[in-house]
Amino acid sequence: MALHPFDPISDAELRLTSKLIKDNTTGPFKPHFVQIDRDDPPKKEMIKYLQAEKKGLPLPRIPRVTHAFYYLDTTLHKALVNVSAAHIITDVALPKGVQGPLLADDLADIEALATSHPACVAEIEKLKLPDHIHVVCDPWMNGVDCKEDRFLIQCYMYLANANHPESNHYSLPLKFSPVFEGLSRKFVRMDYLPAGIDEKTAPTQPWTEFPLVEYHPDLNGESLRELKPLIVEQPEGPGFKVTGQKIEWQGWSFYVVPNVREGFAVYDIHFKGRSVIYRLSLNEMTVPYGDPRAPYHRKQAFDLGDAGFGATGNSLGLGCDCLGVIKYFDNRRTNREGEPVFIPSTVCLHEQDHGLLYKHVNYRTGHAVVARRREFAVQTIATVANYEYAVNLIFDQIGEIKIQVRATGILSTMPIEKGLTVPWGTNVGPMVMAAYHQHMLSFRIDPAVDGYQNTVVYDDVLRMEPNTKLNPYNVGFYTERSYVEKPGYVDQSPFTNRSYKIINENVINPTSKKPVGYKIMMPARQMLMASPESYNNKRAQFATQQMWVTKYRDGELYAAGEFTNQSQTDTGVGLWSKRNENVRNADPVVWATLGFTHIPRPEDFPVMPVEIHEIHVTPFGFFEKNPALDVPQSNNKFNKSVYYDDATSGAKSGAGSCCGKSNL
Amino acid sequence: MALHPFDPISDAELRLTSKLIKDNTTGPFKPHFVQIDRDDPPKKEMIKYLQAEKKGLPLPRIPRVTHAFYYLDTTLHKALVNVSAAHIITDVALPKGVQGPLLADDLADIEALATSHPACVAEIEKLKLPDHIHVVCDPWMNGVDCKEDRFLIQCYMYLANANHPESNHYSLPLKFSPVFEGLSRKFVRMDYLPAGIDEKTAPTQPWTEFPLVEYHPDLNGESLRELKPLIVEQPEGPGFKVTGQKIEWQGWSFYVVPNVREGFAVYDIHFKGRSVIYRLSLNEMTVPYGDPRAPYHRKQAFDLGDAGFGATGNSLGLGCDCLGVIKYFDNRRTNREGEPVFIPSTVCLHEQDHGLLYKHVNYRTGHAVVARRREFAVQTIATVANYEYAVNLIFDQIGEIKIQVRATGILSTMPIEKGLTVPWGTNVGPMVMAAYHQHMLSFRIDPAVDGYQNTVVYDDVLRMEPNTKLNPYNVGFYTERSYVEKPGYVDQSPFTNRSYKIINENVINPTSKKPVGYKIMMPARQMLMASPESYNNKRAQFATQQMWVTKYRDGELYAAGEFTNQSQTDTGVGLWSKRNENVRNADPVVWATLGFTHIPRPEDFPVMPVEIHEIHVTPFGFFEKNPALDVPQSNNKFNKSVYYDDATSGAKSGAGSCCGKSNL
Repeated sequence: MALHPFDPISDAELRLTSKLIKDNTTGPFKPHFVQIDRDDPPKKEMIKYLQAEKKGLPLPRIPRVTHAFYYLDTTLHKALVNVSAAHIITDVALPKGVQGPLLADDLADIEALATSHPACVAEIEKLKLPDHIHVVCDPWMNGVDCKEDRFLIQCYMYLANANHPESNHYSLPLKFSPVFEGLSRKFVRMDYLPAGIDEKTAPTQPWTEFPLVEYHPDLNGESLRELKPLIVEQPEGPGFKVTGQKIEWQGWSFYVVPNVREGFAVYDIHFKGRSVIYRLSLNEMTVPYGDPRAPYHRKQAFDLGDAGFGATGNSLGLGCDCLGVIKYFDNRRTNREGEPVFIPSTVCLHEQDHGLLYKHVNYRTGHAVVARRREFAVQTIATVANYEYAVNLIFDQIGEIKIQVRATGILSTMPIEKGLTVPWGTNVGPMVMAAYHQHMLSFRIDPAVDGYQNTVVYDDVLRMEPNTKLNPYNVGFYTERSYVEKPGYVDQSPFTNRSYKIINENVINPTSKKPVGYKIMMPARQMLMASPESYNNKRAQFATQQMWVTKYRDGELYAAGEFTNQSQTDTGVGLWSKRNENVRNADPVVWATLGFTHIPRPEDFPVMPVEIHEIHVTPFGFFEKNPALDVPQSNNKFNKSVYYDDATSGAKSGAGSCCGKSNL
Repeated sequence: MALHPFDPISDAELRLTSKLIKDNTTGPFKPHFVQIDRDDPPKKEMIKYLQAEKKGLPLPRIPRVTHAFYYLDTTLHKALVNVSAAHIITDVALPKGVQGPLLADDLADIEALATSHPACVAEIEKLKLPDHIHVVCDPWMNGVDCKEDRFLIQCYMYLANANHPESNHYSLPLKFSPVFEGLSRKFVRMDYLPAGIDEKTAPTQPWTEFPLVEYHPDLNGESLRELKPLIVEQPEGPGFKVTGQKIEWQGWSFYVVPNVREGFAVYDIHFKGRSVIYRLSLNEMTVPYGDPRAPYHRKQAFDLGDAGFGATGNSLGLGCDCLGVIKYFDNRRTNREGEPVFIPSTVCLHEQDHGLLYKHVNYRTGHAVVARRREFAVQTIATVANYEYAVNLIFDQIGEIKIQVRATGILSTMPIEKGLTVPWGTNVGPMVMAAYHQHMLSFRIDPAVDGYQNTVVYDDVLRMEPNTKLNPYNVGFYTERSYVEKPGYVDQSPFTNRSYKIINENVINPTSKKPVGYKIMMPARQMLMASPESYNNKRAQFATQQMWVTKYRDGELYAAGEFTNQSQTDTGVGLWSKRNENVRNADPVVWATLGFTHIPRPEDFPVMPVEIHEIHVTPFGFFEKNPALDVPQSNNKFNKSVYYDDATSGAKSGAGSCCGKSNL
């Protein structure tokens, strides 16, 4: 089967990309690859392709293009390669100081150095550790607090149980941290970490106490609870159809495509034959810390731009991460040499039940109409060192897409002396503190609500003028709509019930007599706390507001810009939102910042119960009435539920009356 | 088995209550009962009982007491009856104008009158209806816009298909509305409803068009989608134990007790042997409309106080409303004569899966720890005329209680002339408009966090002072705690990430070194839009703020007061929050207002897909670490998931590797 323009990069294309670059490289240095992936086809061309596809017409040829980031010596290059015609389109050296994302293979080398380099060995010896305790390392991007051209890696160091490979990596942070050059592996300096109530640091001393906080079942000392199995079964098979990357389910059709940076993106989303969204994905995330003291002020991971959610994607386990009948998609990344590394099962797809969809009982007759809410989940889970993020796009039967993020994994920790506390962190163990931080995720929504001419609006709910002929009892309220004409952002306004919508002003809903639209529901949130003068703020403008709108341009995909590692400033939404262009009834792109300030609690350690955050993208006047009236009514012949058996505390079957009666 | 003080009222107790009152009544009028139910035991006595129960000591005797609301002629009475000793404690006539809740039996009589009373028949004849169309009625509480002593019922009238009993009741509202006295059944007046763009009304004219909007499968004209079964099975039975009203599950124990006003309340909630909450329930709800014109200004249902969520509770159907292995509890209400009316299966209880609970992958080894989030749901669904509300309390394995409300059913509708639109409503059909409105639900949380001396606090996240020695990079932020010392309310403050907590200042968490606590997570919301001068506002002060705190007193259970039907003012939180008392390190009660402004969309009609709103009550420093480390690790031998089969688009089993590897 010929490759679809949306299809992910193949092993052959990845190899071809690196081979062409290697063949084209002269001089003493070999390319050191850090990322290779497929680029999106140009939107204008792709729209023509999709329209031809729908009409069964001959398909236009769109060359498949990949990009490669690679180093020659310490200079980062970006190449664009036409892999259909096997030639390099462009290959440019980027300015000094621009760095690429971190490659797992390189980080592994540096991690090893952090406990073997003489400067580190010397420091470790000062600890005078017993045999059962060893030093482990988390290599981090250095972050930014000044102009810096070198690609630096900050190695955070911890103590763990040497006798078990799954001893908690993070419960005993050390107070020194070596910094290496990422490419040459040169030792640069030893940083010292404050562990008191202020910014002062101290020389390394022997450790005598090791109050580790363990989570692994072999080590955590817990007796297991009893849990009875709960099986999700689909005896007639699942209700979704997969053709290549294309999914069809309950009136939806869309393409789910893994990629190394975002985990996956979803393209060409249609519901009941009408277009909704051209492209939807998590596109960036930044996690700045609120501990003001060096070096923590530089702790600001850009987990997608600096690492990549696909590159760090978990290989999901059947029955562990996903329940029921599961389809998996795979991913692949490059290694240093430009060879593909296969990452199986990074995206899982499956149906699930989520309670009631709708119900009404006619109390006069007791007759009920009731349908259950079946959903279709697309999930990926990325492990970025300590943290895990499960990103779900959940489709339902009425045309709604629920964007859901579950943060879990392990808090990033700082050392603290026994007995002390600080106002910018929570003690989560005897000698370990978890600093306050924020998770600021950017979801990029390239809408196509009933077509490609869309407008972003927001509606406020306001009180009517009191004591008028119309409103003599002072109870009236109404909505007022505002239009986003130029790129920029929309202020939050929870107390006017402000809601953001994407509408098509050219398509009027015959029932409501208003333009068709989709609503983007997001609760009001505290945004970036780092002050405007800080690097953290300048590098991540997207995190200062909840709702951004820019005008579509090919290649503008990542909210903080293409190269985030050690970036000096925002080269993304911060710039694009300032352009003086028209975005009304045009091709706008929405960047929704799903943010949450994380004040850690002890319950979040040693491993964090998921914190769940959502954005709902839901029809708003897109349909003339409820589009799920065609969902079959719920009944127990279909659902096969059973009664709890009081006699045995077990289960007993019962036909069960269908669909409840009411008594009023 | 002897009755537990928390046990719900029995048939015998209900009959005994009414009998004692009837026997004690002299004069020409017979008691016309509208509500009989068990009262809560006095908290002081109950605490002693619970402590004795836990220690296996002799149990104190607490008399079981019921209350009855009944009319003698048009005067409302409230009686308190000791049903253990079979005597009336008190029986008082309430002041003129105080009304009781609506009784289904009475509403049914009035509903019949609305189409049979001569004044109504005359009006209906003016419509000149064809045979296949008939008039139906929704009897409503009259609401309030002045001093009114009579108990009045406003009958909203609609046209429906006479040939099918399930024709949508609400898609063709009529423009006249008879008002009756609720007790004497006297016809009071005919109101006329505006259907244009202002407050003007018109005399009744013939109808010639009947653009009904149908939802019932027999009538909606839809071809059904294909849906494959999704079965939830618990082959070893469920994991919860039921003993009377007491539930034990995954470390939790609590009593679930149906009642006629709230649907159900949950008492004496403990997790892993520690107390969390004394009593938790939905306690009131008001739904004011934003259409300023008479008579809609009086549309402000108090669905619990005016009707009762237990009295209007659906009899839930196995496999329809709840999936898996289900336990049901029943309810009972009185009829006019004081005889019990059995309402089976109004509360369902069952386990469910909700995705990941926690996960961490050690990227160096690829080894994962992963557990799935099993939940325990307690659900009731009430039908209050047009609307349905599904109220769920969902318990999880880390000590969190998720309060979840799903609004569904049918929008309340107003007539509108073809071709017109109004700024305070949405057209949902050719001649039907759904006015903007608000759903303001009050959840009462009587906390017992590690004991009965609790304090309500709130924490704000603030930026540190910039450019200091401590914060030279301007990235620092910290938390600041405020204490609720007196009754009152707490302002919302989403942009300081304000979070409400209930703490026990006498119990310090050894790890965090702060008082143990529970956090109440609620997103920021627009509160009551009706102006302070309006009756709607004066009657429902609770709806003006998100978070109220009062000092505990027996009998103070309902946010707007005991008698809400046609109330002139708030006799609940609005009063109790003004008392000058100490609530710090004392016995506070929290009233959390879960509010949402509902701007209807066409997709909400003719039956509304659920809109889901939640409050999360979650441990915050209650534990020294994650309390779910004892949950067994996820594995597919237990969960039995299967692979999607590409060849057949069906399913195929696979052992599946367990618990994913990672690749960074």
